[in-house]
Amino acid sequence: MLRSGPTGARNAPALEQINAEVFTLTYGSIVRQLISDYEDIEEVNKQLEQMGYNMGIRLVDEFLAKAKISRCSSFRDTAEVVAKQALPMFLNVSANVTNWSPDQTECSLVLTDNPLADFVELPDEYRELRYCNVLAGVVRGALEMVNMEVECRWVSDMLRGDDCYELRLKLKEHRDEKFPYKDDD
Amino acid sequence: MLRSGPTGARNAPALEQINAEVFTLTYGSIVRQLISDYEDIEEVNKQLEQMGYNMGIRLVDEFLAKAKISRCSSFRDTAEVVAKQALPMFLNVSANVTNWSPDQTECSLVLTDNPLADFVELPDEYRELRYCNVLAGVVRGALEMVNMEVECRWVSDMLRGDDCYELRLKLKEHRDEKFPYKDDD
Repeated sequence: MLRSGPTGARNAPALEQINAEVFTLTYGSIVRQLISDYEDIEEVNKQLEQMGYNMGIRLVDEFLAKAKISRCSSFRDTAEVVAKQALPMFLNVSANVTNWSPDQTECSLVLTDNPLADFVELPDEYRELRYCNVLAGVVRGALEMVNMEVECRWVSDMLRGDDCYELRLKLKEHRDEKFPYKDDD
Repeated sequence: MLRSGPTGARNAPALEQINAEVFTLTYGSIVRQLISDYEDIEEVNKQLEQMGYNMGIRLVDEFLAKAKISRCSSFRDTAEVVAKQALPMFLNVSANVTNWSPDQTECSLVLTDNPLADFVELPDEYRELRYCNVLAGVVRGALEMVNMEVECRWVSDMLRGDDCYELRLKLKEHRDEKFPYKDDD
């Protein structure tokens, strides 16, 4: 139903913005819809992540074009670009990259503000809901498009009483681009 | 799950914005989800409208506070405020109000741009889908909160080959505020 990302991105006017509350309410609607569709909260978490993944693989093209950056070479650089450029561009928030593992394959993106969750309070029966899981999926999808297979999961969540939102990234594979691109025509 | 609108609106920073493509993709996800949930397109249209209605009754508070306007007196004024102030504030588009019926109870909001539908193409099997029906619901919900019961339906849709988006508004009842507000405490 949606045209392919790159074509759409080229046609789009530069960085249009819309009101964040409309977005927050729209996102809230989809979470509610998924909860009513799937009784199992774990399944809702999965669906939100998958939805984000589908968005991430589209958004990366717009991001690379608008930010005028080429593909990131290291996981370390990439995490910084996500935190300091991609999140500000798309969600109007920024994150800090912290808690690097000694082998530089794991880090955390820490947010203290999150428009996805504005005005949201989780009732007790939804304690296991990863309300912002779409963002974990977006990051996974976007990084996959730059050849980094990562696992993303929320380890802190202000909706569950933590003092920040902490998304843990774990690099599982960084594939080299061994082959030159080939057009499909 | 969401806190009440007015409280949330007061706490919100002034008119935060986010990237429109993120919104467009999020909205696309919810349409896809509803299509996979309900086989019947007419039911999807209804769900989108209901989702919009729930958003409209929340957004009206933020709008009235931010636009610094009091409640509109006539349906005619109200339609202009929706077209020239509310749509620009929330969706970053404006509309023209046209095609008034002689008795001033019906008019059309005409949009030529619509971020909900960016990058969208409807396959033939979804010809009956009112992709943007959320907006019909938002307008209905918001106007209900200012005591105007309206019927809103899309009569032209660029996704179906028309040359504009035309949302037809029909005023069914304009209730006076006969009683002073009473707090519930």
